[in-house]
Amino acid sequence: MSFDPATLKYNDSGLIPAIAQDATSGDVLMMAWMNAEAVAATLKTRRVTYWSRSRQAFWIKGETSGHTQELVDFRLDCDRDCLLVLVNQFGPACHTGRPNCFYTAVRDDDEIELTSPVT
Amino acid sequence: MSFDPATLKYNDSGLIPAIAQDATSGDVLMMAWMNAEAVAATLKTRRVTYWSRSRQAFWIKGETSGHTQELVDFRLDCDRDCLLVLVNQFGPACHTGRPNCFYTAVRDDDEIELTSPVT
Repeated sequence: MSFDPATLKYNDSGLIPAIAQDATSGDVLMMAWMNAEAVAATLKTRRVTYWSRSRQAFWIKGETSGHTQELVDFRLDCDRDCLLVLVNQFGPACHTGRPNCFYTAVRDDDEIELTSPVT
Repeated sequence: MSFDPATLKYNDSGLIPAIAQDATSGDVLMMAWMNAEAVAATLKTRRVTYWSRSRQAFWIKGETSGHTQELVDFRLDCDRDCLLVLVNQFGPACHTGRPNCFYTAVRDDDEIELTSPVT
């Protein structure tokens, strides 16, 4: 039996959301999009690979920044339209230089910043 | 200063993805969609409220099943197009009766089931 990326449910643009979670800390790092080929590349190479909608190109996370994600576990949800990748994250996950992308919280109706860029 | 849900980035259907994470265990429970009104309702009532695309209606998580999500923290990502809600989850989060929706893993090219429905 062999996992077929085509059996996942993609949107009209051929994309599926992928949540990246730190396999050690449990922190949710980011959410980005994959197409079927990016799914296959992620599983084959163990380097998490997304599809960049803005650049219309494959995006091996960290290929430019060095902040790569090594795949620890690949999961899909109950209706096969969302992915969860557990990863070892090297360096900050967010392009802003923060550990993860979810650094803004709404508290008492105000936005507050939870972390600063890692220098 | 007051947080305005209209300042988030919604897709062409007026929806933004929302990842729910257990505030205690760190488990990623599910991902579903919110519109601006669901965001506002979530923040106001502290009961996580999504928008059901299939039913085209608001969906207060657990309104039918009792498996509600109490909002602990509301976060947004760096480009404001994805939400992360930390929650206290009452009962199983997944409609299949499992603790969370991400119970299928791809390992050695096969799909395996990580949890069974809670009876």
